[in-house]
Amino acid sequence: MHKKNFAVILSGCGHQDGAEIHEATLTLWAIHKNGAEFQCYAPDIKQHHVLNHITGQEMNEQRNVLIESARIARGKIASLATFNPDSADALILPGGFGAAKNLSSYAFDGPKCTVNTDVASAIKAMHRSGKPIGALCIAPVILAKVLGKGTLTIGQDTGTAENLAAMGAQHHPTGQGEIIVDRENKIVTTPCYMLNSRLDQIGEGANNLVRAMLEMMGANQG
Amino acid sequence: MHKKNFAVILSGCGHQDGAEIHEATLTLWAIHKNGAEFQCYAPDIKQHHVLNHITGQEMNEQRNVLIESARIARGKIASLATFNPDSADALILPGGFGAAKNLSSYAFDGPKCTVNTDVASAIKAMHRSGKPIGALCIAPVILAKVLGKGTLTIGQDTGTAENLAAMGAQHHPTGQGEIIVDRENKIVTTPCYMLNSRLDQIGEGANNLVRAMLEMMGANQG
Repeated sequence: MHKKNFAVILSGCGHQDGAEIHEATLTLWAIHKNGAEFQCYAPDIKQHHVLNHITGQEMNEQRNVLIESARIARGKIASLATFNPDSADALILPGGFGAAKNLSSYAFDGPKCTVNTDVASAIKAMHRSGKPIGALCIAPVILAKVLGKGTLTIGQDTGTAENLAAMGAQHHPTGQGEIIVDRENKIVTTPCYMLNSRLDQIGEGANNLVRAMLEMMGANQG
Repeated sequence: MHKKNFAVILSGCGHQDGAEIHEATLTLWAIHKNGAEFQCYAPDIKQHHVLNHITGQEMNEQRNVLIESARIARGKIASLATFNPDSADALILPGGFGAAKNLSSYAFDGPKCTVNTDVASAIKAMHRSGKPIGALCIAPVILAKVLGKGTLTIGQDTGTAENLAAMGAQHHPTGQGEIIVDRENKIVTTPCYMLNSRLDQIGEGANNLVRAMLEMMGANQG
């Protein structure tokens, strides 16, 4: 049996304006730990903005989502526009504000957000093919918007849970490291830094998510 | 017994011009996993340069080591100039070219390199107090330069091993996930991405390093 290949969509590098670094890294760690492989992708677009992660203030700079995501991927990354769903067995979206500011406009528009067309196409194609999709932290809002259904978790934030319902999904509350498995839609989600978490809990959530996705694929786990 | 507190010195955000993100993240993960705490530090200085991590080409930008390191630390980071050795039980330096370009000039000057004065002061103070120091990947070269002694590993690269000897240290070759423990000098090192490694091997090395350091402190491990 060939090793299962996960496509991972990054959204920059740093939780305030891009991908959450611990969630992204521990997703890649969990994929390797369970004997699978990954290919990182990101849209080749400008970041919504650049924030100083100490002060939270906007910096007078422009950065590119694909180029900054390459820092997490150690350079091995492709433009999401080139994504071929046939090349991947599963898809994962780590969290961070990049998911809500660069991959979608959720941070600004809530349930009325738009989703980057390449991100939406990748999700729809994988869902259509019956391949598992995983999302961490705030990224489940993108799945709710694109698919208009699904049983998901973003932890315990009631405002976000209401927004998920407004987009057609169902929310189940979770604690640190827990996952929600939607077998019908082949979606797995985990709250990560939507809750106050230690890094080992982020790793536990990512590992549980990857293992549940591999189980959906009928893969033997290491 | 109070939880052991690790000071972690970051050198930017991205392995080509800053801290290696997987090594830094998995160091923090290993600290939490073993029931300890951390405080991140970085020097408040300009990066040597900014590299596009896809092409490896220099970008016409300036970035600050402390501000970029904050992306890995989720904003909870202090200037290394404020470091009080009494506040920490142990010190860790993750790798990445930032260690050899921002924390020191090793990438350019080899054994004749200089080390940032705040980095050198922190290492000397911890060593003088008999507290353990850990270094990953290329960062052991900084310990060799500052202390002029020690039994260290940077994996299997003979050129770097010769440079360590020229600075007064002894090199022991290691494989993925392995550590070298120098009990006399209370130094623990692991090769990480100095070898071709998977992320679970980076995690294994970081976890072995943190556990060996906790053992030196006589701490119970989780």
